[in-house]
Amino acid sequence: MKRIVLLRLGHRPERDKRITTHVGLTARMLGAEGMLLASDDQGIVHSLEDVVSRWGGDFYIKNNVNFKQEIRAWKEEGGKVCHLSMYGVNLPDVTGELKKCEKLMIVVGAEKVPPEIYQLADWNVAVGSQPHSEVAAVAITMDRIAEVEPLEKEFPGAELTIVPAERGKQVIENIRK
Amino acid sequence: MKRIVLLRLGHRPERDKRITTHVGLTARMLGAEGMLLASDDQGIVHSLEDVVSRWGGDFYIKNNVNFKQEIRAWKEEGGKVCHLSMYGVNLPDVTGELKKCEKLMIVVGAEKVPPEIYQLADWNVAVGSQPHSEVAAVAITMDRIAEVEPLEKEFPGAELTIVPAERGKQVIENIRK
Repeated sequence: MKRIVLLRLGHRPERDKRITTHVGLTARMLGAEGMLLASDDQGIVHSLEDVVSRWGGDFYIKNNVNFKQEIRAWKEEGGKVCHLSMYGVNLPDVTGELKKCEKLMIVVGAEKVPPEIYQLADWNVAVGSQPHSEVAAVAITMDRIAEVEPLEKEFPGAELTIVPAERGKQVIENIRK
Repeated sequence: MKRIVLLRLGHRPERDKRITTHVGLTARMLGAEGMLLASDDQGIVHSLEDVVSRWGGDFYIKNNVNFKQEIRAWKEEGGKVCHLSMYGVNLPDVTGELKKCEKLMIVVGAEKVPPEIYQLADWNVAVGSQPHSEVAAVAITMDRIAEVEPLEKEFPGAELTIVPAERGKQVIENIRK
């Protein structure tokens, strides 16, 4: 089973609150085990932990990490690091390599990232060499390298479950014992 | 050649500025012809038009549209409408139908959408029945239904072009005559 963790760099509380939340929701939905936030923002932690408690699964958020230490520790345990940006090699050219990787850290920055990240990453990958949404970059990359259909993933322990429906909304509340 | 247009509902200037910009950037990058904004926000129009003028292509933004009129006109011209949300049938179950569609309007809301949209849409589609990023939903749907590799699309008339590189940033400035 492939392990994926997301590292969010350059997050500025207030300005990036909603984009970073969307990055986290996307990573969770597509099967990442957690998100490391290289900034101090308890608001992001609370809003994502609230989603996990209601919608299930065991996605975690680690606040205010030192990104160099996290990358070093990950690599020491045999993990690889893929930095997504507007620059770098195009995703279709490395999808095969990324798919083979059993332990992958996906790094996305906000507007500015520390330049060292280009050296620390095993791959610098562009998801289209065009002005960039980091949410879309995470979504497309994780979708393309998934081993099984990520949109059919189940999240155990949910309080709320959606029943797919052609029209309208159907949500089941699961009563916990 | 498939035509795709994006309709953004429920955008609140200020609060949704960055998410709506990311929705527009994602739609442009993956080959939509334009975005219809069912709210009045010239700031979004300017920032996306600025991207188009520097990075090429002919993606358009139409501000402050009446969404019912746009949907009616689109359908009268033979177009279909796909509403992406947390609810609805799961994307893998309708990908084949969506792929066959030659003229597709993709609709994404912000937190609240007018309930009529569930009736007006030909498909209500969940991109994973989980808390939702509309940016990720647009990205995954457009990527999965694309006829050719969307990440290799070229944008004619660009002032700036990125050269894919393993490390660092290489950007070409194209001098216009």
